[in-house]
Amino acid sequence: MRWCRIAHGGREPFGLVTEDKIELVDGTPFGEYRRTGERVALDDARLLPPVLPPTFFAVGFNYTAHVRESSKAVLPERPEVGYRAQGALIGHGEAVVKPADCTGRFESEAELVAVIGRSVRRCSRDEAAAAVFGWTIGNDVSAREWQHGDRTFWRAKNSDTFKPMGPWIETGTDPLTARTTVAVDGTEVAGFDTGAMIFDPYDYIREISRYITLRPGDVLWMGTDATVEMVPGTTLAVSITGIGTLRNPIVLEEDR
Amino acid sequence: MRWCRIAHGGREPFGLVTEDKIELVDGTPFGEYRRTGERVALDDARLLPPVLPPTFFAVGFNYTAHVRESSKAVLPERPEVGYRAQGALIGHGEAVVKPADCTGRFESEAELVAVIGRSVRRCSRDEAAAAVFGWTIGNDVSAREWQHGDRTFWRAKNSDTFKPMGPWIETGTDPLTARTTVAVDGTEVAGFDTGAMIFDPYDYIREISRYITLRPGDVLWMGTDATVEMVPGTTLAVSITGIGTLRNPIVLEEDR
Repeated sequence: MRWCRIAHGGREPFGLVTEDKIELVDGTPFGEYRRTGERVALDDARLLPPVLPPTFFAVGFNYTAHVRESSKAVLPERPEVGYRAQGALIGHGEAVVKPADCTGRFESEAELVAVIGRSVRRCSRDEAAAAVFGWTIGNDVSAREWQHGDRTFWRAKNSDTFKPMGPWIETGTDPLTARTTVAVDGTEVAGFDTGAMIFDPYDYIREISRYITLRPGDVLWMGTDATVEMVPGTTLAVSITGIGTLRNPIVLEEDR
Repeated sequence: MRWCRIAHGGREPFGLVTEDKIELVDGTPFGEYRRTGERVALDDARLLPPVLPPTFFAVGFNYTAHVRESSKAVLPERPEVGYRAQGALIGHGEAVVKPADCTGRFESEAELVAVIGRSVRRCSRDEAAAAVFGWTIGNDVSAREWQHGDRTFWRAKNSDTFKPMGPWIETGTDPLTARTTVAVDGTEVAGFDTGAMIFDPYDYIREISRYITLRPGDVLWMGTDATVEMVPGTTLAVSITGIGTLRNPIVLEEDR
């Protein structure tokens, strides 16, 4: 199944995507829900981030190539995560705004996202796998000067519009055999095997759950193996086979 | 006004506290709400974290004494924040669980918390002040070995139960003239002037809002000037004059 969330008549309902239509749903995919029979055309819908995570987990270095190209060239020995701001999320199609005073490299990080479907604490790998509701795509937009100069990633990775996620949650796929690709204005510029991670999502969920309850709707961004410069005036698309394509135009904030 | 949130009949409604009673409310303090006339005794209520923040902002070093006693003895030159996990929040009265494998210092950080009431972006100091709905108390429980040994604060500050917040949100007070005190089993062991910050909440909100929209229900934890060891079997209370007292027993997780 393919779950989305859209702006519709002043509300933000979940919906089920079938080919070119979205059927609206009462309730949430993580609990009780009911198909309403009301359909809208996928092309006409404004897609929102497919979930607003209570807790937004993000993995840093998780592919060997990305570690080598970064300044901290040390491979992680354990699965460790950070946190991002829910408020930075935008949906498929919405513009990423590069702040007017942001200098230095402004980069995309194409990432697989695991969406948690049930509460787990101290779980096994099998229980971790069963706790994943489905998969979506994230673009961990990063302003490198801020990332390296600030004490935290507060604005480098969490400014408004810096976290595109979507277009939907796909439940029936195995992303560890998938391929992630990045395209700029329709031309593929980077790609990697999605599953070639140092620690996979089930390792992370098991490790996090030693101390932290993962809850329905929480998301876990899995890190990247492809950083691509984001140039205002272009459109960047991240695709993962079996899930879909997350496409966002990039615009420069007007100086205020 | 004094806003709380309680567990009540399978729901988690907001309520208004008057002396020893809580009147339940339909809706939220950040939008439309209606008093229901239904009252419960404050002593009988199970208080929840008074809000579940969409984005959970936390200030690091913000009092000069706390900077000097830490390993990073550099005063911040700008207001910068980090993020915490919503899932780590507990309410007044709930137990803080020290993980069985947590060695090293296990400490309380008594903090003032600003609760945001309206969306702001690129705001002035005055607009920042008007955006604060009210104030509550936080205990930024910290496992120091994990804090210093891990790549991030993922478990050091975000393990389950590590973020007591409450007991309620007080709207009619000026915490910058208040005093924060910490007591263990009823005996005061530390205290500081709440307002003696390097950057105050309005500085922070103005700075964050240059890049990030603060939204209703978001919380901003303001840092501490008092760290106190948390010993299982004792109860730790953080009080801020004009707001109230946040009291939590500390228990050791059974080895599993």
